Amino acid sequence: MGNRFSFDLKATDGRARTGTISMLRGDIQTPAFMPVGTAATVKAMKPESVRALGADIILGNTYHLMLRPGAERVAKLGGLHKFMNWDRPILTDSGGYQVMSLSDLNKLTEEGVEFRSHLDGSKHMLTPERSMEIQRLLGSDIVMAFDECPRADRPRDEIAASMELSMRWAKRSRDGFDCGGEHAARSALFGIQQGSLDQELRRISADKLIDIGFDGYAVGGLAVGEGQEAMFGVLDYAPEMLPTDHPRYLMGVGKPDDLVGAVERGIDMFDCVLPTRSGRNGQAFTWNGPVNLRNARFKEDTGPLDERCECPTCASYSRAYLHHLQKSGEILGAMLVTEHNLAFYQALMRAMRSAIASQQFAAFAADFRRDYLGSND
Amino acid sequence: MGNRFSFDLKATDGRARTGTISMLRGDIQTPAFMPVGTAATVKAMKPESVRALGADIILGNTYHLMLRPGAERVAKLGGLHKFMNWDRPILTDSGGYQVMSLSDLNKLTEEGVEFRSHLDGSKHMLTPERSMEIQRLLGSDIVMAFDECPRADRPRDEIAASMELSMRWAKRSRDGFDCGGEHAARSALFGIQQGSLDQELRRISADKLIDIGFDGYAVGGLAVGEGQEAMFGVLDYAPEMLPTDHPRYLMGVGKPDDLVGAVERGIDMFDCVLPTRSGRNGQAFTWNGPVNLRNARFKEDTGPLDERCECPTCASYSRAYLHHLQKSGEILGAMLVTEHNLAFYQALMRAMRSAIASQQFAAFAADFRRDYLGSND
Repeated sequence: MGNRFSFDLKATDGRARTGTISMLRGDIQTPAFMPVGTAATVKAMKPESVRALGADIILGNTYHLMLRPGAERVAKLGGLHKFMNWDRPILTDSGGYQVMSLSDLNKLTEEGVEFRSHLDGSKHMLTPERSMEIQRLLGSDIVMAFDECPRADRPRDEIAASMELSMRWAKRSRDGFDCGGEHAARSALFGIQQGSLDQELRRISADKLIDIGFDGYAVGGLAVGEGQEAMFGVLDYAPEMLPTDHPRYLMGVGKPDDLVGAVERGIDMFDCVLPTRSGRNGQAFTWNGPVNLRNARFKEDTGPLDERCECPTCASYSRAYLHHLQKSGEILGAMLVTEHNLAFYQALMRAMRSAIASQQFAAFAADFRRDYLGSND
Repeated sequence: MGNRFSFDLKATDGRARTGTISMLRGDIQTPAFMPVGTAATVKAMKPESVRALGADIILGNTYHLMLRPGAERVAKLGGLHKFMNWDRPILTDSGGYQVMSLSDLNKLTEEGVEFRSHLDGSKHMLTPERSMEIQRLLGSDIVMAFDECPRADRPRDEIAASMELSMRWAKRSRDGFDCGGEHAARSALFGIQQGSLDQELRRISADKLIDIGFDGYAVGGLAVGEGQEAMFGVLDYAPEMLPTDHPRYLMGVGKPDDLVGAVERGIDMFDCVLPTRSGRNGQAFTWNGPVNLRNARFKEDTGPLDERCECPTCASYSRAYLHHLQKSGEILGAMLVTEHNLAFYQALMRAMRSAIASQQFAAFAADFRRDYLGSND
């Protein structure tokens, strides 16, 4: 039997870090991008293809899975890994963010959040304890603490009160997770820093989390509409408030240039629906920037989507064909562009890991921005 | 350089036949099922997966491809094979059937059919000569003669007049195809027997086609709502009106039990959207009959879709998971069930070929019907 959870930091370059998280279901090379498998599927992808592109870990959504097919049902069927045919690590979110943004009629109390399902209007209650139980029933490898994420434009006292509530919930999450028996001995728990754009609140939140003690620490409450500049502003100080010897996870981020800027500021893990959702809409990411395949200029373009890409889509299909599939609303269009986008994201992570290991991250980031953003940064 | 087109009949068992069609782009084992790739994609499938399941040939639709992306554009991009990444034989239909069933406002004359595109209302004309040209521009391996297919419930004089028109169009198709230069030297042309449910008209049609001379002969005008009994009634005499030493192709058929009954009556080739279309709707074909995966009884069914199936879907996923994907409207649900259905169809064809080769077709058909239809036939 291997490690429940360890983080081996192999190299740093400026604030950028590269390392390996070791868990019972496999290693995770960091900086890592986790494809999102909301409803027990990375949309339009077979799991073996997700793995083949380089993903060490994927994310599942507690909110969606608790409503359909239901956490107890997933447990009865042998857990999320078996259900969806993915045998490597899975990180599950706590449901806290989505219960506030997606559910109908939600009510927030000290105890938790009462809400109605967006699927059938049925009534549910999510608390730190129930969130831990659901993530245990799913068989999650990395469990996220249950938190609340206020909008960045709320008054400071609301942001502060919300952060304090999230920290009390973090403690209850820790206690709930630790009572999970066998599952607790085989998985990890991450805390989530809140405090929005306020440096002092971020400091208080970090200290409280460290006091509780977690396997990893997420920077929460960003990528909620504050913009890249404000996000980078927080990332200029927030990651360093968190322990050096544990992974730092920026939730729900982001665009390729967000990832580069966040790694530059000390982040180790990411998840985002962007490569998969964009893939279904014909929006492709390339080393020369984003490309909208629905654009008529691709009608007779025989070149590959991205000349620098080695993915199966770029090896076998032209932009003209991908354009045709998008215009025709064909499922294969979603499949091929999603696969390319995930390949691009994983290639970007590999390139960043390699650049950090060889102390070339600044040069890599400058080259990336020149090609991707067309900037001379 | 190999054969342009040859048909080697290896064994017969009653009226059932098994053999090999050899063409420049590859061999086709018969009886053969051709997955339908309407708009330059077998829906929800990568071409390499279609091939891996055993397909020797796929079908493309002239009507759809002439409208989008356009035959001239496909030719400019290097032909349909390169465009869609399929290097084995492709059969294209003539557009005759779909221009009457799918287009807006069509007008039939001796010359051909004038119609408006269902996509953008643009005006087009399809004639035998233009159909041959389009199929040549696409780079089709097996070109179908341009024909008209009347409804089976029309009066006999209409059916007869329509058949006579189709036979004049068959001659114009032959002439148009033969003027195709290099393409004609590398591909094959099939004629299409018409005459609906009338034995005498079928005989006249067959004689006229044989007089013109084709590489293969299709039984057209069936599977248009007449029912299995009436279809089998025609297949009791129609295939034997066509030359023994050329393949016989039953267009647009069908359900698994249709295929078994048609092979039993001397048919060598089939195409149908059923396995792919049903796959997207959660309707699966198994050796024990069709299964609707949306049915609530599969919610916690941990068994595979079909215990006798060796496809990737049945190897790795439960009925409960496939049910979940269908209920959630996930693309992966369409992908996995389509793959299973095409695997089932190809396995059925393999089993029929093997049964014919070993003179066991009657026993195979009886066993199949017992399990699939629950009948004691």
